[in-house]
Amino acid sequence: MSHIVIAGAGLAGSLAAVYLAGRGHEVRVVERRPDPRTSTPDGRSINLGLSQRGITALREVGLLDELWGRTTPMRGRMVHTDAGTSFHPYGTADDEILHSILRDDLNAALIGRAEADGVRFDFEHKVVALDRSLPVLTVHDGQFTHELKADLVLGADGAFSTVRTLLHRGTRAELHQEFMDWGYKEITVPANPDTRLEALHLWPGRAGLVVAHPNHDGTLTATVFLPFDGDDSFAELTTPSAVRRLFATQFADLASLVPDLVEQFLAHPTGNLVTIRTAPWQHEGRVVLLGDAAHAVYPFYGQGMNAAFEDCSVLDTCLAEHDDIPGALREFERRRRRHTDVLAALSKENFLELRDGMRSPLFLARKKADLLLHKAFPNTWRPLYTMIAHTTTPYADALARARRQDRALAAAAVTVAGTVVAALARSRRQVPGR
Amino acid sequence: MSHIVIAGAGLAGSLAAVYLAGRGHEVRVVERRPDPRTSTPDGRSINLGLSQRGITALREVGLLDELWGRTTPMRGRMVHTDAGTSFHPYGTADDEILHSILRDDLNAALIGRAEADGVRFDFEHKVVALDRSLPVLTVHDGQFTHELKADLVLGADGAFSTVRTLLHRGTRAELHQEFMDWGYKEITVPANPDTRLEALHLWPGRAGLVVAHPNHDGTLTATVFLPFDGDDSFAELTTPSAVRRLFATQFADLASLVPDLVEQFLAHPTGNLVTIRTAPWQHEGRVVLLGDAAHAVYPFYGQGMNAAFEDCSVLDTCLAEHDDIPGALREFERRRRRHTDVLAALSKENFLELRDGMRSPLFLARKKADLLLHKAFPNTWRPLYTMIAHTTTPYADALARARRQDRALAAAAVTVAGTVVAALARSRRQVPGR
Repeated sequence: MSHIVIAGAGLAGSLAAVYLAGRGHEVRVVERRPDPRTSTPDGRSINLGLSQRGITALREVGLLDELWGRTTPMRGRMVHTDAGTSFHPYGTADDEILHSILRDDLNAALIGRAEADGVRFDFEHKVVALDRSLPVLTVHDGQFTHELKADLVLGADGAFSTVRTLLHRGTRAELHQEFMDWGYKEITVPANPDTRLEALHLWPGRAGLVVAHPNHDGTLTATVFLPFDGDDSFAELTTPSAVRRLFATQFADLASLVPDLVEQFLAHPTGNLVTIRTAPWQHEGRVVLLGDAAHAVYPFYGQGMNAAFEDCSVLDTCLAEHDDIPGALREFERRRRRHTDVLAALSKENFLELRDGMRSPLFLARKKADLLLHKAFPNTWRPLYTMIAHTTTPYADALARARRQDRALAAAAVTVAGTVVAALARSRRQVPGR
Repeated sequence: MSHIVIAGAGLAGSLAAVYLAGRGHEVRVVERRPDPRTSTPDGRSINLGLSQRGITALREVGLLDELWGRTTPMRGRMVHTDAGTSFHPYGTADDEILHSILRDDLNAALIGRAEADGVRFDFEHKVVALDRSLPVLTVHDGQFTHELKADLVLGADGAFSTVRTLLHRGTRAELHQEFMDWGYKEITVPANPDTRLEALHLWPGRAGLVVAHPNHDGTLTATVFLPFDGDDSFAELTTPSAVRRLFATQFADLASLVPDLVEQFLAHPTGNLVTIRTAPWQHEGRVVLLGDAAHAVYPFYGQGMNAAFEDCSVLDTCLAEHDDIPGALREFERRRRRHTDVLAALSKENFLELRDGMRSPLFLARKKADLLLHKAFPNTWRPLYTMIAHTTTPYADALARARRQDRALAAAAVTVAGTVVAALARSRRQVPGR
């Protein structure tokens, strides 16, 4: 049994605590924020889409059944444009769907379960120092400083991880940090018969993009993505008339569904979108990063939480396979990092798909063809989205397979075209009288 | 007249001070280190290669004539291999050469000139805080804290710039930081007839790479580049016998030139190689970064100092063209950043050229063909290296032109091949009796 200190009681940190307590370790979690079960929301995105990777991890720790009742299925994308609405299913099989869940519900369930398993949580404790070799994590509770000696320190403290900064200080660490020049704002859409369909709702606008998750009570939580600067940007949308004009011209049916749209828009905070890639994730088998601390991605593939949960599952597998924690951590980084690097790239690209693709007949036709091929050859043809969202095929392997499929399809198209040309040429030669 | 505070009295900071004092501003420079004119070297790379961009900037501020006497020309690359040595000139024109200079000589000349122009230097003053809106730079001299109010704060405090960190704190700043898994160590080669040629000396080894600059006194300053880990790495080379074996098997003629090679190798520190790309470079026209603080590159194109000097020249041009400092800073970043981003990529690629290319007959033939084309068509054909080192064509424009040339050459090759094939076909048809 080892003593493990986890920084961060968010989704990654609390699920990791459950896994590690399940292996018989003594686990203590420190968290900068107050207990999410008793405090008011802090403005972070409140709706998440559980897909296969997240589901698999929750099943592994036996939490899935308890959570099913709090999820709302999303069977495909409902695209709202001036021309009306259209529905595009995610997959061909019954289980190829996503499940909307409130972040706080999920986080409360994870913390509750970890506590039941003997994990100690210290909220409002801020990381102030790390001795990465011992390791010792120093935290401050607003009044006193505590030095927590451990066998392993786990940094699950998010995209702007203090553990990561301290882990990398003075070393040859790699860090890639990029922000989108777009931000987001959340808007609650009241329950309405028009949006009751079990779907992820999308409004691809000319200047912006709105994505909405259904909630249990029939409401939607909509996220409005807009540029920070320029025309129709957050910088311009600071008056009721400017906000009203934007929605009237670009998201007219959404405006009609939300009576207090302008008030919500002007009152709610604007969030940033960041991509973080970094290396190394661990130091001499004593300290390791996971979740957003190791790889923050844009939300456009809906994989942030799912990838963090999969991290916990992969780390658990590595611990099962290795007798020593250092060996397990090295293997974890070796096995996992290349896949989350690929996810970062895919999540960036998918923004353009969501924004422009959903208005493009060509793109939608390609999506449809992908699903038809998948239905016809379920074992041979798997669209990239299907592999990312509905399987646990590692991200880089999914991308490699999608590229192989595309090449094979192109080769098949060339063969078919060649056969047609040859047949035409034959038939022409056989035309009598020439 | 504006009050300008510059953080960093290195090459970029002290040259910027000269330019800004020349525009009539009141300039004060704060520097964490002691005065380089009176202190012992701190282990940073001591030899630099001045090329056209650096020369142009030094000419603009009238410092070139004073410095010529302290430089040593390098007319090409002298490549040392087991098979002997070969010389490869940098260019075809007399002025297509580089000039080796000691960092401390150059820095002392720049600081001396800035002081003569009325710039105040405060050494051993460390940046501890920045109010980026006023702006106010707070520095600590080991005993007291000083708040320096300015119209403009200039961050020229190197690759690990404190000003950059403070400028970006809490903003959507982009940062890409990568270290090479190779490091370097400097070795002094005593004066010797065999190395007296006016050249950059190169030893492309199997496991490592040695680059040496000539000095005024006939000595060479050699930089040994090796991997940090693995076989023949810095991690392994910790005993006299291991060091002796590496040089005997990979750089035998170098070992014969340096009697105390082993002692130097074990005593000298190992340096890191970092690439930094970042954005934004400036904040509301109040704070701006330049030199390594804005863009650190690997040393393999010899452009680090030259790019920093060119920054100062471009910034000066922007200040001349704009009535207001904020407008000038925006224009500086807009005009300059895309070019230094390209330089970062080129500097990475050139490592492979230096390490592998110098041993490859194909690569050397291509280099030779490049120079022949350049000599035959001096206005039409310019090798990429020539444009980077021997002109002031902005980096991205140089790369674009090199790509256009390559495409034109490929097209010409296809045309020539086509003409030859057609001629062969014609001549075959004319063969009598067939």
